Amino acid sequence: MNNPLIGDTIVAPATLPGTGAISILRISGPECFRFADSVVQLKRGSISECAGYTIHYGEVPGLDDVLVSVFRAPHSYTGEDSVELSFHASRYIAEELVRRLLAAGCRMALPGEFTRRAFLNGKMDLAQAEAVADLISSKTAASHRVAYNQLRGGFSSELASLRSELVEMTSLLELELDFSEEEVEFAERSRLLELIDRTRSHVVRLADSFRYGNAVKNGVPVAIVGATNVGKSTLLNALVGEDRALVSDIAGTTRDTVEEVINLDGIPFRFIDTAGIRETVETVEKMGIERTFRKISEAEIVIGLLDVTAQDSTIKSNLELMVSKVDFGTQKLVLCLNKVDLGPEMMVNKNVNMINSFVTSIDKETVVIKLAAKQGLGLSELRATLSALESHLIPNADSTFVTNIRHFDSLRRTADSLSDARLALTSGTPSDLVAEDLRRAVTSLNQILGTDLIDPETVLQNIFRNHCIGK
Amino acid sequence: MNNPLIGDTIVAPATLPGTGAISILRISGPECFRFADSVVQLKRGSISECAGYTIHYGEVPGLDDVLVSVFRAPHSYTGEDSVELSFHASRYIAEELVRRLLAAGCRMALPGEFTRRAFLNGKMDLAQAEAVADLISSKTAASHRVAYNQLRGGFSSELASLRSELVEMTSLLELELDFSEEEVEFAERSRLLELIDRTRSHVVRLADSFRYGNAVKNGVPVAIVGATNVGKSTLLNALVGEDRALVSDIAGTTRDTVEEVINLDGIPFRFIDTAGIRETVETVEKMGIERTFRKISEAEIVIGLLDVTAQDSTIKSNLELMVSKVDFGTQKLVLCLNKVDLGPEMMVNKNVNMINSFVTSIDKETVVIKLAAKQGLGLSELRATLSALESHLIPNADSTFVTNIRHFDSLRRTADSLSDARLALTSGTPSDLVAEDLRRAVTSLNQILGTDLIDPETVLQNIFRNHCIGK
Repeated sequence: MNNPLIGDTIVAPATLPGTGAISILRISGPECFRFADSVVQLKRGSISECAGYTIHYGEVPGLDDVLVSVFRAPHSYTGEDSVELSFHASRYIAEELVRRLLAAGCRMALPGEFTRRAFLNGKMDLAQAEAVADLISSKTAASHRVAYNQLRGGFSSELASLRSELVEMTSLLELELDFSEEEVEFAERSRLLELIDRTRSHVVRLADSFRYGNAVKNGVPVAIVGATNVGKSTLLNALVGEDRALVSDIAGTTRDTVEEVINLDGIPFRFIDTAGIRETVETVEKMGIERTFRKISEAEIVIGLLDVTAQDSTIKSNLELMVSKVDFGTQKLVLCLNKVDLGPEMMVNKNVNMINSFVTSIDKETVVIKLAAKQGLGLSELRATLSALESHLIPNADSTFVTNIRHFDSLRRTADSLSDARLALTSGTPSDLVAEDLRRAVTSLNQILGTDLIDPETVLQNIFRNHCIGK
Repeated sequence: MNNPLIGDTIVAPATLPGTGAISILRISGPECFRFADSVVQLKRGSISECAGYTIHYGEVPGLDDVLVSVFRAPHSYTGEDSVELSFHASRYIAEELVRRLLAAGCRMALPGEFTRRAFLNGKMDLAQAEAVADLISSKTAASHRVAYNQLRGGFSSELASLRSELVEMTSLLELELDFSEEEVEFAERSRLLELIDRTRSHVVRLADSFRYGNAVKNGVPVAIVGATNVGKSTLLNALVGEDRALVSDIAGTTRDTVEEVINLDGIPFRFIDTAGIRETVETVEKMGIERTFRKISEAEIVIGLLDVTAQDSTIKSNLELMVSKVDFGTQKLVLCLNKVDLGPEMMVNKNVNMINSFVTSIDKETVVIKLAAKQGLGLSELRATLSALESHLIPNADSTFVTNIRHFDSLRRTADSLSDARLALTSGTPSDLVAEDLRRAVTSLNQILGTDLIDPETVLQNIFRNHCIGK
C-alpha cells in the first residue's frame, strides 16, 4: 500500500491539556527514542536503552518532571517504537513540550494517525480501527458493547468465517476449470446452492442489523406526535429532565438541530421534535405538518399524545390521523393519554374507553398508557414500555450489530454478488463466471476489513479524519 | 499528624474522560494492587506480583483493554503503592471502571488528595504541594517558571537556609542560658544583630516579591484610562485581538468580571476596564468616575489615552486629571496619543508638542507613544514598552517570587518576629526572651513548608480543596 505518511515520527497530545491532573503526549515512529532523548533527561541512561513496557522518571529542563513510558515495536499501539510522556496537565507545558519535540524532528500527527498506523502495521483490521472512534464516543451500555465487540474482533471474525466459506466454494469451482476438458464437477451444485443461500442470509442478517446498530449508536428515533397544546414539550422535558446529565447529545452525528437523547436501561432514545398535527387547508401550516409526517416516517417508535380532556370528536380525528401515518410493519405506536388528572372523571373515563375500543378495532399492536405528564404520573410506565420495545438492543454478548454505513454498503454488495452467483448457478452459466461472482462477494467482505480497498488513500482519509487527535 | 483519610485506597480520574484519545485513572493506597487485580485481568500473572515502574497489558472484562502502570511505595507520586490505568477516553468506560473499583473497595479521592498524600508521606513539602496546582494553571512562561521553581524546591531551599541560620542563632542564645550563672556570651551581640538584619532583609525581600509574584500569576494590572470616545475599546481589542487565543482568562482567580489577559514576552498583562473620565458635577456619573479612579489605584501600569484631534484645552484637562491620579512612586504612566492619522497634520503636531512639553514640565517618568489604534499603528511599540516596563518579571532562573498569600503572610510574621528580636537584643532583654522571638520566626517559616502547622487539618483542607480531582 502506497503510504507517504508512514516512516516519519509523529507526536500528538493523547489527552486534552488543562482538563485534569496529568496530560499525555504520544510519540510514535522509528526515531521516537532519539527525539525523546533530545528533550527529556532521564535520571540514569537514555530512553533509547530502555526496555519496552517500562516507565522512567525524567526531567524536561526548565519545564517539568515527566514520566516516560517506553514501548518497543511491534509491542505498541501503533506497532512502531513509541513513547508516552506524562506531565502536569498545563497547557503551557504541553505547548512547550510539543514545540521542543517538533524542533527535535517530530511531525504533528494527523487526526487518527496513531490508529491508522496500527492498521497499516497489521495491529488491527479496518473494522477494528473504526471501532476505536466508536468506543470513545460511546455513551450508553448498548453503544459501548457494540463498539467494544467490534474492537475486540467479534465482527471481524464473523466476517472472516463467511469469507473462508466463500473462498472454499470459489476454489472448488476453479478446480473444475482446470479439469474442464473432463467435465468433472468437484462442487456438487445443490450443496453449492445451499452454501450460497446460507452465506447470503447471514450477510443479509448482518446488513439488516444496521437499522438496529444505527439506533444503538445514534439513539432509537422516537417521534412525539400530537395536536398543539396536548403536552408534547411537557412530556419531552419530563422524560429528559433527570436523564439530561447522562446523555446530553450524541457527538459525531450530523443533524439539523440538537435532539434530546435519554438513556433508558443502557439504550439511547433520540426524541424527534415535531410540530402539532391537525387537518388543515392553510398552505404554510400544511408544509409544517407535511414535515411532521416525514419525521414520523423516520421514527422507530411513534408516541401519539392525546388530550383526554378534549372533545371526543377531536380525539377521534387525531387518533385516525396518527394511525394512518404509522407503518405498523416497521414502526411501533405508543398511545399516551395525557391529562388524565384533569377534567371531570366521567368524561375522562368515557374518552379513555372510546380510545381503547378504537385501538381494539384497528387490531394493530399498540400500547396504551395513561399519563399526567406535568405531575410525572405514568412516566415510569412509559419509560419501561420504551425500553421493553427495544429490549433486543439491550447489551448481550452474542449478537453483532453493524453500526457503520461503509460496512452496511459492503455487506449489501456482498449479498448482491451472492444473488448473482445463485442466478448464474441455477441458469447453467459456466463455472468461471460463477466463480467471478463469488470472488466479487469476497472482495466486498475484504473491504470491510481493509484489504482489497479500491482507492485506499481516500478510504483511509475518510475514516481517520473523524478520529480524535492523538488516537 | 492526625489524619483519618490516609490509610485507605483512593481512586480518581487523572484526566477528564471524553476529551482526548486516552484517559487515566489513578489508584493509590495500601490495597491498590489487590483492588486493581479484582477489576483488571492481566494476560499473565497479577498486578500484585508486578515490579514497580513497569507497564502491563490487561483486560477489564466486557469493558475495555487497559494498560496498567505499576508504582511501588515509596517510589510513586504519593509515596504509596499506586496504579495508573490507561483506557480509551470514553465517559461510559470511565464511569463503569470507577464503579467497579469502588465496588472492589476503593474510595473516591477528594480534590488534591493524591498531592496531599505526597505531602503527608514526605514526598514534598507544603510549598511544593501548593506549586502543583499553580503549575497546572500556569499559562505563561513567567507564571510557569515561578511555579516550576517552587515545585522543584527552589523556594523551599531558600527558606531552609534562612531557617538554619535562625536555628543556629537560637541555639547559641540557648547555650548561654545553660551557662547563665557564669554570664558567658557565646553569641557575640554585634554579630547576632548583623545576622538578624541580614535575615530580616532577605525575608522582607521575599515578602515584597509577592507584589510581583501576584502579577506573574494573575497578570500585571493595566488600566486603560481616557475620556469617552477616545478609543479605549478599540485599543483593548487591538491589543487583545491576536493574543486572545494564547491567554483568554486566568482561571482560579476571583474577579467581578472576566478581564482580558494578554501574554507579552511570556508575561501576562491583565487589562482593567474603566469608564470614561472627565470633570463632572452629575452625581451618578461622578460615582462611575470615582470607580474608575479606584481602579486606577489598583493598576501597576496606567495607559493614559488621549485623542490628539481633540481641542487642546480638552487634552490639557484630561492630561492633568490623569497625572493627578497616578502614584508615580509605585505606578507607571504610559501616555498614548491616539488618532495621529486623523485630523489636520499641523493641529496634530501642535497637540503632540503641547503634550510633550507638559510631560517634560511635570518631570515624572512617563513614556509617550503615538498611536492609530484602529489601523494598528504604534501597537508593537506599546507592546514592547509594556513588556520592557515589566522586564523584571521575565523568566530567569535566579529570582524567587512569592505568589501565595499564605506564604506572604508567614513571611511578614517572620519579619515581625525578627524585628522584635532585634529590639529585644538592643534593649538588653534577657537572652531567653530573644531566643523566644527567634523561635517564633522559625515557626513562621516552618509553616510555609508545612511543619509546625497550628491547625493542620484546616490548613490542608483550605489548600487542597482548590486542587483538581486526581492530582
